[in-house]
Amino acid sequence: MESGSQREGSQREEQARIRVTVWNEFLHERENEFIAGIYPEGIHGAIAQALRERGFPVRTATLDQPEQGLSQAVLDETDVLIWWGHKAHAQVQDAVVERVHARVLAGMGLVVLHSGHHSKIFRKLMGTSCSLRWREADERERIWVVDPAHPIAAGLGHYFEIPEAEMYGEFFDVPAPDALVFISWFQGGEVFRSGCCYHRGHGKVFYFRPGHETYPIYHQPEVQQVLANAVRWAAPSRGPSFLYGQAAVNVREPLEPLPERGSGRTRVG
Amino acid sequence: MESGSQREGSQREEQARIRVTVWNEFLHERENEFIAGIYPEGIHGAIAQALRERGFPVRTATLDQPEQGLSQAVLDETDVLIWWGHKAHAQVQDAVVERVHARVLAGMGLVVLHSGHHSKIFRKLMGTSCSLRWREADERERIWVVDPAHPIAAGLGHYFEIPEAEMYGEFFDVPAPDALVFISWFQGGEVFRSGCCYHRGHGKVFYFRPGHETYPIYHQPEVQQVLANAVRWAAPSRGPSFLYGQAAVNVREPLEPLPERGSGRTRVG
Amino acid sequence: MESGSQREGSQREEQARIRVTVWNEFLHERENEFIAGIYPEGIHGAIAQALRERGFPVRTATLDQPEQGLSQAVLDETDVLIWWGHKAHAQVQDAVVERVHARVLAGMGLVVLHSGHHSKIFRKLMGTSCSLRWREADERERIWVVDPAHPIAAGLGHYFEIPEAEMYGEFFDVPAPDALVFISWFQGGEVFRSGCCYHRGHGKVFYFRPGHETYPIYHQPEVQQVLANAVRWAAPSRGPSFLYGQAAVNVREPLEPLPERGSGRTRVG
Amino acid sequence: MESGSQREGSQREEQARIRVTVWNEFLHERENEFIAGIYPEGIHGAIAQALRERGFPVRTATLDQPEQGLSQAVLDETDVLIWWGHKAHAQVQDAVVERVHARVLAGMGLVVLHSGHHSKIFRKLMGTSCSLRWREADERERIWVVDPAHPIAAGLGHYFEIPEAEMYGEFFDVPAPDALVFISWFQGGEVFRSGCCYHRGHGKVFYFRPGHETYPIYHQPEVQQVLANAVRWAAPSRGPSFLYGQAAVNVREPLEPLPERGSGRTRVG
Repeated sequence: MESGSQREGSQREEQARIRVTVWNEFLHERENEFIAGIYPEGIHGAIAQALRERGFPVRTATLDQPEQGLSQAVLDETDVLIWWGHKAHAQVQDAVVERVHARVLAGMGLVVLHSGHHSKIFRKLMGTSCSLRWREADERERIWVVDPAHPIAAGLGHYFEIPEAEMYGEFFDVPAPDALVFISWFQGGEVFRSGCCYHRGHGKVFYFRPGHETYPIYHQPEVQQVLANAVRWAAPSRGPSFLYGQAAVNVREPLEPLPERGSGRTRVG
Repeated sequence: MESGSQREGSQREEQARIRVTVWNEFLHERENEFIAGIYPEGIHGAIAQALRERGFPVRTATLDQPEQGLSQAVLDETDVLIWWGHKAHAQVQDAVVERVHARVLAGMGLVVLHSGHHSKIFRKLMGTSCSLRWREADERERIWVVDPAHPIAAGLGHYFEIPEAEMYGEFFDVPAPDALVFISWFQGGEVFRSGCCYHRGHGKVFYFRPGHETYPIYHQPEVQQVLANAVRWAAPSRGPSFLYGQAAVNVREPLEPLPERGSGRTRVG
Repeated sequence: MESGSQREGSQREEQARIRVTVWNEFLHERENEFIAGIYPEGIHGAIAQALRERGFPVRTATLDQPEQGLSQAVLDETDVLIWWGHKAHAQVQDAVVERVHARVLAGMGLVVLHSGHHSKIFRKLMGTSCSLRWREADERERIWVVDPAHPIAAGLGHYFEIPEAEMYGEFFDVPAPDALVFISWFQGGEVFRSGCCYHRGHGKVFYFRPGHETYPIYHQPEVQQVLANAVRWAAPSRGPSFLYGQAAVNVREPLEPLPERGSGRTRVG
Repeated sequence: MESGSQREGSQREEQARIRVTVWNEFLHERENEFIAGIYPEGIHGAIAQALRERGFPVRTATLDQPEQGLSQAVLDETDVLIWWGHKAHAQVQDAVVERVHARVLAGMGLVVLHSGHHSKIFRKLMGTSCSLRWREADERERIWVVDPAHPIAAGLGHYFEIPEAEMYGEFFDVPAPDALVFISWFQGGEVFRSGCCYHRGHGKVFYFRPGHETYPIYHQPEVQQVLANAVRWAAPSRGPSFLYGQAAVNVREPLEPLPERGSGRTRVG
């Protein structure tokens, strides 16, 4: 039988094939000393490092870059995009949102973190307000695994804790997830669907709740484990080629012989 | 035991409480004599009549009316909106789409028919391209019930047929439905998920495939039965009051006592 | 516009058509004075009364009756069966379980309460262990609505509380529900999927968590509201007639003409 | 950028870690010369060879072996079990079924093929009759991908065909799948949900329709591709350790401090 380290080696090789881009609006860390102390390389830097340590090839992208860091070229070379945004959602250009959206439908994975619930791209993909209740009170969060068969729960215990967190509470106005992996308990009395999986077109979307900028949440090993799992899960499956552009596809020729029996109504349409 | 007619009487009374608005772009029927012959009162007229016969209070609305027929007042008095559109999707004003979207999230039911798959409102609610394959060849469609427990399958047999139809084939680029009620078989070799249920916010959305303008499909009793079932299913459930406007809700006071133990990080955010 | 009381009147009439049977093992209430004080007419008696007050025709059935209260005749006259059991699951005869199972697949609704998670019928319908974590510590439970569009959430607020409850915690080993309506928060640190909807065959199944025998939970108005909602939701939809007995159905005649082209392999099978 | 063959190499290594057991009742192939001609090494032999060629370590097991080929030792060394049975479902011992069931809940993947829909293990895991309509008429089947983001659709086109097949038609009496990957079109007029994914406990279950013994279906490359994809998808995720045996778990100690405020009712239960 293989040893644990053999398995890790093989998984590491698999991960080396998944090209990750971590996008961050990157404002809090430059404007607030306290937050800069938690994330000296930015939130994107901390996430990128955690993923690189696990073998993923990672680049980062930020709002202040040309094309807001997400040119067509960058997206075309991205298998999974991780999104952290909070107070600059409105600054993200619609053209960038459209570009990301098209790439997700064509197969790119998207992992939306924490306050990214209100980003333009997540709202566009969900079709709902994506609103929720929230509170900042340094309270404890306990994240329970409710789908232990799911690959995003790999390597976790039955639950894990975040010592201090911003609270997000239900009702979380998103479509019922295709798979619900985590539910959070909050000390102040709320619950939250914290790990939500969606297929959209040829792409996969994972929303993961934790990650407020004032806490060192992305330095936590369990959170990093979830991020690595989510990236593996969201990587393109190389299914059927993407079919659609702006229009539906007119397949004039039937796959089966059709009798000459029609009323000919189609000619009048 | 109650008789069938008692049950129908009671259901009719229930239906009398559900205010339906049937919206139609209403172009084909005015521009094409052949189509006008099938739907002399318009597609909306045919659907409205079928629902009125079953006891629903129905109004109609069309693209050419002030505010495209869907003022805030009309929407506020609508429990379930039925949508038929085809070639004028782009003409529907974004403000109208936003208004309908907000009403769905707040609880109004929405039944989207046939070519409405590409309407702005359906695409916005789904978050995907909503594209599909299609063919006009006067072919037979057989609609199979795959969830016989679902209320939208009430009163149907195991399948029903549409003698001649436009074909819609997979891949249909929508989110996996919360419940899949119907799958269509097409003579030319395709299949299609023809009855798709979604919850979005406090509202319910049903997509129903049949209904090309060149065929008398909305005159078919089984189709009318599905429409009546769908309206009943999509009617507001009068669940918890709608919570969200444009922003998330800050609930400062915890529901449970929180110890004075926090790091106070929230004050820096 | 109709008044609230008109709506209630019409809903009451609808409810008058749904024949409910409340089944209870009925042991705790006869063996323990404290529990008898909470439920002098038995748990089934309290639930039956709450439903009768809302217009449903209700009968009760208990383990000590002939055929354990669930003869074929009783089941045939039952639209929705409510199940409460705890310490006598093993005493329920397999023949009774088979009978209930067949009726659910043929369309009868089933509402399984609290410790019924480990009943034979629920385990048989779920196909999993239906196990969970539990603790008896008189702790507070807060039940959050996570699908406000669902009819089982009708008439509720965004959450409701149970002052003292037995705790049930995740992982709850059931299939992912077709719809998840409630999530519970517990004072001691756990969460639980407390309102789970399933379609099974032509029947609907709802699992509702609250209801330990040592607390007056079924006297709580919100709990009674959920029970009434669940019964309405689970009532048979009168969809396509039930097709299957013990065997699959051989439909020799194709619905479409098939060419005489086959290899004839079917004759050798 | 990596080449296609690098990716295949890495995937092959991943597959080398997944231990597959192919179980077959193995009766038709020994009793019928025509069928033996199609599958000289048995259906299990053909499937095993196809998987071995893709790098999976595979063993086979048959009904005639001691413990019907599925001893605890064999199951303990199996990551994914593939099941083919048809006319000997009743001969499979209940003890074997219980053993497989327990292993699935604890994390083993299960891929159920074709007539295995009526096997004891599949019915037990589904909780329904698993019945369907069927016809043997050498007709064409076209299998459409309806979830192109799903890993089980990897490497496929938008559809693939099986030239001659036994027909399986709806209503297929199974729970709504957690993910629906394929829908079949049949020449004779039916449709079928042909690729159904389920999580059960810590395990994953995939039902795949094709595979009647009188046709060389398991020699078809697309079918073999689906089998390989399904095995990879169903392999254990190494999530939280399996928690449950026969009983629920009593966690006496709360995770959060509970006040001494209870009514003490728990002591009377």
